[in-house]
Amino acid sequence: MRVPSFSDIESAHERIKPFVHQTPVFKSKSVNKLLGAEFFFKCENFQKVGAFKFRGATNAVGLLSDTEAARGVATHSSGNHAAALALAARNRGIKAYVVMPETSPSIKIKAVKGYGAEVVFCKPTLEARESTLKDVIKKTGAVEIHPYNNFNVIAGQGTAAKELADEVNGLDIVMCPVGGGGLLSGTSIAIKAMLPGSKVVACEPAGADDAYRSFYGDKLVPSVDPKTIADGLLTSLGTMNYTIIKAKTDQIVTVSEGAIIEAMRMIWERMKIIVEPSAAVPLAAVVEKRINVKNKRTGIILSGGNVDLEKLPF
Amino acid sequence: MRVPSFSDIESAHERIKPFVHQTPVFKSKSVNKLLGAEFFFKCENFQKVGAFKFRGATNAVGLLSDTEAARGVATHSSGNHAAALALAARNRGIKAYVVMPETSPSIKIKAVKGYGAEVVFCKPTLEARESTLKDVIKKTGAVEIHPYNNFNVIAGQGTAAKELADEVNGLDIVMCPVGGGGLLSGTSIAIKAMLPGSKVVACEPAGADDAYRSFYGDKLVPSVDPKTIADGLLTSLGTMNYTIIKAKTDQIVTVSEGAIIEAMRMIWERMKIIVEPSAAVPLAAVVEKRINVKNKRTGIILSGGNVDLEKLPF
Repeated sequence: MRVPSFSDIESAHERIKPFVHQTPVFKSKSVNKLLGAEFFFKCENFQKVGAFKFRGATNAVGLLSDTEAARGVATHSSGNHAAALALAARNRGIKAYVVMPETSPSIKIKAVKGYGAEVVFCKPTLEARESTLKDVIKKTGAVEIHPYNNFNVIAGQGTAAKELADEVNGLDIVMCPVGGGGLLSGTSIAIKAMLPGSKVVACEPAGADDAYRSFYGDKLVPSVDPKTIADGLLTSLGTMNYTIIKAKTDQIVTVSEGAIIEAMRMIWERMKIIVEPSAAVPLAAVVEKRINVKNKRTGIILSGGNVDLEKLPF
Repeated sequence: MRVPSFSDIESAHERIKPFVHQTPVFKSKSVNKLLGAEFFFKCENFQKVGAFKFRGATNAVGLLSDTEAARGVATHSSGNHAAALALAARNRGIKAYVVMPETSPSIKIKAVKGYGAEVVFCKPTLEARESTLKDVIKKTGAVEIHPYNNFNVIAGQGTAAKELADEVNGLDIVMCPVGGGGLLSGTSIAIKAMLPGSKVVACEPAGADDAYRSFYGDKLVPSVDPKTIADGLLTSLGTMNYTIIKAKTDQIVTVSEGAIIEAMRMIWERMKIIVEPSAAVPLAAVVEKRINVKNKRTGIILSGGNVDLEKLPF
């Protein structure tokens, strides 16, 4: 299987720079003191559409030929990729069709529609998403941009870790959440190329632990009836993502729902920034002592900040 | 009455620089588009202790003689000044005694104690605060550092607006909330000195409108039974603050509770940062069309980010 190399991430970075924010890296003395490490938080919650997903979508849309682009793009997504693809498509002046589970947070549905995409609802199962998407593509001829199992999307997602490593010297550990594996595979490629001595650790809710089981079981297994507050991480690991992660990721740890909420609260209260539950999963692994970062320079990619304020866990 | 001049703010800035964060100025295309202006948000929610108050407290503590400092400092405060004074005192290695209304948000009480101050509770009235504080000072000999009616505190608070004007050219309007008037008086002095063509607009909850009534009635009137979600703005305008504001502030507008919540929500959802209700009061004035900022370069001081996540208005 052909997978992205670091040079694909470098080209992606040049391609998407005019469209994406170079998000800030935040530090927090208070969180450092509480947890005994030196953290560098890459704030993708401040990215356009409120999540790193805009990087991958922008790269994938940017690489379409004019003929492809004219047919529009289509995808299924539980939310952030949907908004990301919608905005990326609008930036290129093309149509986006988005299949969304009818259970998606209202804030995400509103955002997708706000960016001008056509939303098609389906049942919240992988099967329903895929069959509905097939129908849409059949009808419209749109090009599918998969949320994570896509070469160009992965290359785009890797640009967040690239910016982090460009800005912060000598990271011992880089952590990110894993759902479908787009962010993790891009991050792993970038970090292993730029900081070969640094460890890449993926963090996953115990209630949606297909990446953990796949990684350590040496066989890609799907997510079956996943349950977690981290709604961005309900999806199953993709085949391309699995291949990359097996080769480049050092470790996957799982965390409890309680730890996710505690970590999310810590980020909100101490850092005064809004992150969604999925983004709090890496810090949850530290809170829950699933990974030892004592005195280590630890990069964490805060993947997004889209939460429904009506449904907070506090 | 001797009041601070801009040079006092400049000296304060040099004095406190080693202790305070130079907070970032955030922009938001999405908020700009929604409200039709170009906003520059000075993020004092990212200041140490989560509020601009740390600037004034640090300046006042820094200006104590060694003899004064040895006796410790004391104050009454509904919260942010309390935490600010506690940390400023700890930074100088001296004691802080803090009189707090028993109704203060738990997150603020916890913070004050966490910074090592001795907390003395009182009823939530100005009278109870003042008499309890008198008792404390009598017993300990501590130097009172008033939250806002204090020359050095005002000079310190003015450094937030100074940093904003240093960083952003050509602001047409600068807005901040007004409670006791510490931030507003410091801001007015700084902006009138640095950007004489710029308008300083104070924003106040209609349910705690003593500054509005004092300003337009040409007579300092106290806050009687104020009611607002903006718990940092319940206090009455100070005499020194009143004097400065009458001379230097251009306009005061009042806003409804609904607009405060709407503005707070807009900042949380669109900018992914946490601000307390008091900090949302200036944007509320724009939301509620109490002030016309159409196409204007508008600076807003986001005064703080300390909210009790258990008691959100959403």
